[in-house]
Amino acid sequence: MSEFEIIREIFAPLSAGAPGAFGLADDAALLDQNQFVVTKDIIVAGVHFLPKDPLDLVARKLIRVNLSDLAAKGAKPVGYFLGCVWPANIKREQIELFARGLGEDQQIFRVALYGGDTTRHAAKGAPLTLSATFFGHPPRQGITRRSGAGTGDDLYLSGTVGDAGLGLAALKKEMKFTTVDKASLAGRYHLPEPRISLGAALAGLATAAIDVSDGLLADLGHLARASDLSATLDAAALPLSRAAREWVLTQDRFDAAISALAGFGDDYELLFAAPPSMRRSVSVAAKASRTEVTRIGSLSRGAGVTLTDSAGAAIAAPKSGFDHFKK
Amino acid sequence: MSEFEIIREIFAPLSAGAPGAFGLADDAALLDQNQFVVTKDIIVAGVHFLPKDPLDLVARKLIRVNLSDLAAKGAKPVGYFLGCVWPANIKREQIELFARGLGEDQQIFRVALYGGDTTRHAAKGAPLTLSATFFGHPPRQGITRRSGAGTGDDLYLSGTVGDAGLGLAALKKEMKFTTVDKASLAGRYHLPEPRISLGAALAGLATAAIDVSDGLLADLGHLARASDLSATLDAAALPLSRAAREWVLTQDRFDAAISALAGFGDDYELLFAAPPSMRRSVSVAAKASRTEVTRIGSLSRGAGVTLTDSAGAAIAAPKSGFDHFKK
Repeated sequence: MSEFEIIREIFAPLSAGAPGAFGLADDAALLDQNQFVVTKDIIVAGVHFLPKDPLDLVARKLIRVNLSDLAAKGAKPVGYFLGCVWPANIKREQIELFARGLGEDQQIFRVALYGGDTTRHAAKGAPLTLSATFFGHPPRQGITRRSGAGTGDDLYLSGTVGDAGLGLAALKKEMKFTTVDKASLAGRYHLPEPRISLGAALAGLATAAIDVSDGLLADLGHLARASDLSATLDAAALPLSRAAREWVLTQDRFDAAISALAGFGDDYELLFAAPPSMRRSVSVAAKASRTEVTRIGSLSRGAGVTLTDSAGAAIAAPKSGFDHFKK
Repeated sequence: MSEFEIIREIFAPLSAGAPGAFGLADDAALLDQNQFVVTKDIIVAGVHFLPKDPLDLVARKLIRVNLSDLAAKGAKPVGYFLGCVWPANIKREQIELFARGLGEDQQIFRVALYGGDTTRHAAKGAPLTLSATFFGHPPRQGITRRSGAGTGDDLYLSGTVGDAGLGLAALKKEMKFTTVDKASLAGRYHLPEPRISLGAALAGLATAAIDVSDGLLADLGHLARASDLSATLDAAALPLSRAAREWVLTQDRFDAAISALAGFGDDYELLFAAPPSMRRSVSVAAKASRTEVTRIGSLSRGAGVTLTDSAGAAIAAPKSGFDHFKK
């Protein structure tokens, strides 16, 4: 069973009667009267962050992964509810460090803590588990949904692809990098940049959007399926950081390296669709929000996601994204 | 360090700028424009429920402990966001059983699932951890806060006290009961009854309210502190179920037995204050919501909570309620 099957088959029926829940097929929901957009993400030690990650960084990651969902909807963040389940042997200094991280990001993103619950595991060794429910105001044009893209729409990605995955591999010592590259890649893993200004600038302009948490290919799959379309990505067009480009050069096969990067999760960039007639407007929105945006492919009739080389031939994609319910 | 110190000293400063957060000193928060009341509770296997409890009952308890917080505010529940961290070896049938429990209580309480996040522990043996963020509409009279009670106000409790604690002891085989009593007490532990109708009927009438989750003495302590008053409880007035009365009769000392019951958590009854001039109105509200309500004490100047015997002498209270951060 996959995470997405569980949601679609077991939990989605429970959202009947809640039109703003979109059948649990989006990253966020609308409360009655369209006044609030709400999203909830959980992160668990050993799954979404490394057990030894400093807790101020973990706190900021918790805030940022949630803000990234609001960003994809074009929403303006307001505040959040926090749930903490601490390890049995947690020390006060650790909780204080965690709260300092929350405070830093609250200042940067101008959000406040509204409430929550804090408790502790009874079992020794049970991992730190953190939940946040964020809410914000929808843009006046209405939120950008995962669905809604049209045939022929262009696909765009903010920032660069695969850095957080390389950063995780560096932190786990599965790959070697120069000190500078390792720091920059690990930074992308620890502190993703929620694309709030870009998301807001795209309201009414993008036909569909999603933030890349499971991996570019996987999240593009979610967006294409929600819009009932197929997607083609141009491997040569994918925006790479300097560190990722260097890494690609050390790999035997370019194709395999690119599809690995497109499979890595945790980037929290915005992936969105817009009609070709809007290319100029997308460029203006990107400039206004000071965010790099790259056109990386397009949508057509059909289903599925294809990564193509410069000749337009399909590249076999070995990884299709992260799923918590698959090994 | 106590759970309440952690909230007050470490997390409360993070709620600056969110007037609806009430400095994290209440069970729920108000979103902007007073349109929504929101609460979030987490339950963890081995802490808030027994690892072998059937998952449909666990699901319903998750819903009910959150609805109990909304009930204390007088709010009308609308929907919720769900966060699940499943054990590494969870089976689909278990998740389905859990969702069936959610569905049953959604029908009873007319709430819908709006969104959330579902993930899985990487570590074997890590406990099922469940989070819910519930929202509802505040009553038009405004929500009932934890603070706001006045000197001389009466104290009232819905239902009976200590049953869930006895039920837990029965389930853990720490105490013996007749089959009938065990079933009834265990039922109180597994399926608390959120006092939604009563809470709504008390809006504009009760000066302060809290739901009893940590234990009557502990939660009365929270209410009294928030209102800057002291509280006196009449031990002989505390409402006991038939099973609890039988249990008290088997105990060596009445005083010790009563204060044990007043220390047990998990009852999820409503504890509230109202001026003596409102006794008739409270009785009408109780009848209208078909909920037993008992006058159990009063508030005065000063600080602290005292349990008194029929002569007005203080009974030493051995247990002062549950705190996840104390052993």
